[in-house]
Amino acid sequence: MDLDELRGALSEGALTTDPATVESYRRDWTQSEAAGMPLGVVRAGSADDVVATVRWAAARGVPVVPRGAGSGLSGGSCAVEGCIVLSLDRMRAIEIDVATRTAVVEPGAFNAEVKAAAAEQGLWYPPDPASFEICSIGGNIATNAGGLCCVKYGVTTDYVLGLDVVLADGTLVRLGGKRVKDVAGLSLLKLFVGSEGTLGIVTRAVLRLVPAQPPAATLVATFPTVEAAARAVVEVGRTLRPSMMELMDNASINAVEDYQAMGLDRAAGALLLCQSDAPGAARAQEIELIRAACESVGAKECFVTDDPAEGEMFAAARRAAFPAIERLGALMLEDVGVPVPQLPELLTGITAIAERHDVQIPTVAHAGDGNTHPIILYPRGDEAAKERAAEAFVEVMHLAIRLGGTITGEHGIGRLKRAALPDQLGPDVMALTHRIKDALDPQGILNPGAAF
Amino acid sequence: MDLDELRGALSEGALTTDPATVESYRRDWTQSEAAGMPLGVVRAGSADDVVATVRWAAARGVPVVPRGAGSGLSGGSCAVEGCIVLSLDRMRAIEIDVATRTAVVEPGAFNAEVKAAAAEQGLWYPPDPASFEICSIGGNIATNAGGLCCVKYGVTTDYVLGLDVVLADGTLVRLGGKRVKDVAGLSLLKLFVGSEGTLGIVTRAVLRLVPAQPPAATLVATFPTVEAAARAVVEVGRTLRPSMMELMDNASINAVEDYQAMGLDRAAGALLLCQSDAPGAARAQEIELIRAACESVGAKECFVTDDPAEGEMFAAARRAAFPAIERLGALMLEDVGVPVPQLPELLTGITAIAERHDVQIPTVAHAGDGNTHPIILYPRGDEAAKERAAEAFVEVMHLAIRLGGTITGEHGIGRLKRAALPDQLGPDVMALTHRIKDALDPQGILNPGAAF
Repeated sequence: MDLDELRGALSEGALTTDPATVESYRRDWTQSEAAGMPLGVVRAGSADDVVATVRWAAARGVPVVPRGAGSGLSGGSCAVEGCIVLSLDRMRAIEIDVATRTAVVEPGAFNAEVKAAAAEQGLWYPPDPASFEICSIGGNIATNAGGLCCVKYGVTTDYVLGLDVVLADGTLVRLGGKRVKDVAGLSLLKLFVGSEGTLGIVTRAVLRLVPAQPPAATLVATFPTVEAAARAVVEVGRTLRPSMMELMDNASINAVEDYQAMGLDRAAGALLLCQSDAPGAARAQEIELIRAACESVGAKECFVTDDPAEGEMFAAARRAAFPAIERLGALMLEDVGVPVPQLPELLTGITAIAERHDVQIPTVAHAGDGNTHPIILYPRGDEAAKERAAEAFVEVMHLAIRLGGTITGEHGIGRLKRAALPDQLGPDVMALTHRIKDALDPQGILNPGAAF
Repeated sequence: MDLDELRGALSEGALTTDPATVESYRRDWTQSEAAGMPLGVVRAGSADDVVATVRWAAARGVPVVPRGAGSGLSGGSCAVEGCIVLSLDRMRAIEIDVATRTAVVEPGAFNAEVKAAAAEQGLWYPPDPASFEICSIGGNIATNAGGLCCVKYGVTTDYVLGLDVVLADGTLVRLGGKRVKDVAGLSLLKLFVGSEGTLGIVTRAVLRLVPAQPPAATLVATFPTVEAAARAVVEVGRTLRPSMMELMDNASINAVEDYQAMGLDRAAGALLLCQSDAPGAARAQEIELIRAACESVGAKECFVTDDPAEGEMFAAARRAAFPAIERLGALMLEDVGVPVPQLPELLTGITAIAERHDVQIPTVAHAGDGNTHPIILYPRGDEAAKERAAEAFVEVMHLAIRLGGTITGEHGIGRLKRAALPDQLGPDVMALTHRIKDALDPQGILNPGAAF
């Protein structure tokens, strides 16, 4: 391939073929062994570099695998053989517009950086994946990322007002803008959100901000069983919208306590971590309603604090579950979701799957959304256990589908879950998906093998 | 055309060719003279009738114009020559699922009926077009309708969790469901919302409900000029999200007072109608912040009430602006939006356009969203004035585009604004739009001539 021609079309130093650098941009968090070897890595300095790369690739039928911070959990930015990895990690500008309450953001900016820039102006960008300190806005948009506060504040797509997108032929289109309402033409903007880099590459986003979140009060309730905790979630959801409603099961509680002692109840079957950020006295009222709901289904203990710092410590403990469990062995991370009333059945079903396949499946969940992260754990290097884990991984997805749910609530299909997607969507929706893909990327060069 | 074959494929009595009935289903609110003559009207009794109609039409290349309650303001459901009008007005089932906080709704159900059914269970469906008592959910989805509370609670697309859609070949696909988060596959669901019947026909929607809205306090502020009122909107938006922020200019105030006396200040240049539904004491605090913002830019008077019934009377007055002005002559209804800081410039520009073309343009606005409804008024039967009105109509759209805005915030492009769409979107986005349309409806039978 004439990489020199590509190099000449790009800004100085944007293209790298240095083997060590290429290797470091080849995989995302999944560290997939199936990742192919890229021809090179373009670290775009601007939208012009993205346009030039896609044009070059389109003319030659070369696959382009876009990449944000590489924190993806589904293999969506793992390289394919002979591709160009197009990294957006150098494009990190953030501009806050107070008057329109928007942030204009380049895709490589971290979620936490957008939050921080907004906070300086008394504003807030709500979506908060647990990885918010290390994940990029571009990746958040590619996966339509969720997080902890989404139970009240919605997901990434709810905050995207505008996108610049480079299409598969290198055309840059500008969709939406700093206007809150706009129904002129098809809702193309929303189609690109969650498309995992298969329809276009985002080079700039206009994000909606809201006034700063009021301080939150926190309730931690412990339950004898995961199922009781799940029933509490259903109860609470009947009457109010907490600003956080997270679940940790016994195994994840203990993994976190081993990792960094937080004083969580190691004997609890599960705990719920709930917050209310309702203003003024309504906050305490909501917390009391949550407490009553928890107690009505058999909570062992409820701890309440009005101190935001203490509440944030609990949220940090919840976010630590993933790194804490990661230390214990090799793992496969699930992201299945169900309608909230099916949460108890999903969680008991997961326990049964774990027993049947002789693997551990500690589980944390954005429980208020019905979105769970069962973490299938097996001893590193144990091939037989790995096989059992893989079987459990597939069974958990099918359980979610059977319960009217989804195989991915916020991480995306990536390359890990592609085989299971038709089971959820069915042949007609798959056909519709391919019709859109073919219309927008007839050569199939944009992130081939990802998403569908 | 072999209508007998269509009749045979449908439920008893679904197809009508009776001229009076056909005539009554031929146009929407616009009463467009350009409407064509349909072959017949299918009043579908179920999704099966929709599938049968589209299959029959697809086999023959017959256009299908879908239709909800016929309250559309952009001509999106006006018939084209030789089409089948596919009315969903008999499909009105509503089922509330308290446990998942969702409504499963057929497209012909009125927005107000969904609200009422939800309210019986202590739940709320927020989107509230001013026409909510006479518009259908199917039409709301087709246009991604907004309303008064959208400034805080978002628009229709934010509440659509699932859709059954009949595609252009008669395939029925089910997208999404009763799950809050789902990123499996492309965001097809959102693509159909706002597509004005050009990509598929919705036969069932799963809508997200939220706990009942807390009672709202209301502030009515009067201003010497529209521009001052618009500046107050910008001020308020810097720090908080009212649950309503509507603007009426002097002409619309007086039209409403003539229509049904409400005691509005006829001398005011404009008024803002703001509500806060923050819980408890926060409500009064927000209202005070709004008052301070209004006074800081020169409000003449602020009236505050904590009585929800009184607040609703003002909201009803605002909603009455449209029928009140409709009595005064023929009109062309605009729906342009701009980023909120451009609101003053948009409103002063509209005044200038009215003067230049010697027409009246009373204006109401969902001001908090930057979405305005200039109502271009001219004497019925005065052809010269109609011409001037049409020129003003186009100029207002171009003004909005120039200010970084949109030609339609919530009504849709329909058939009235199609010519102006390329000016807003540009050739590349138009080409992208057509690629999607061609992929999903290669024959172009679904609502041809609408939207783009």
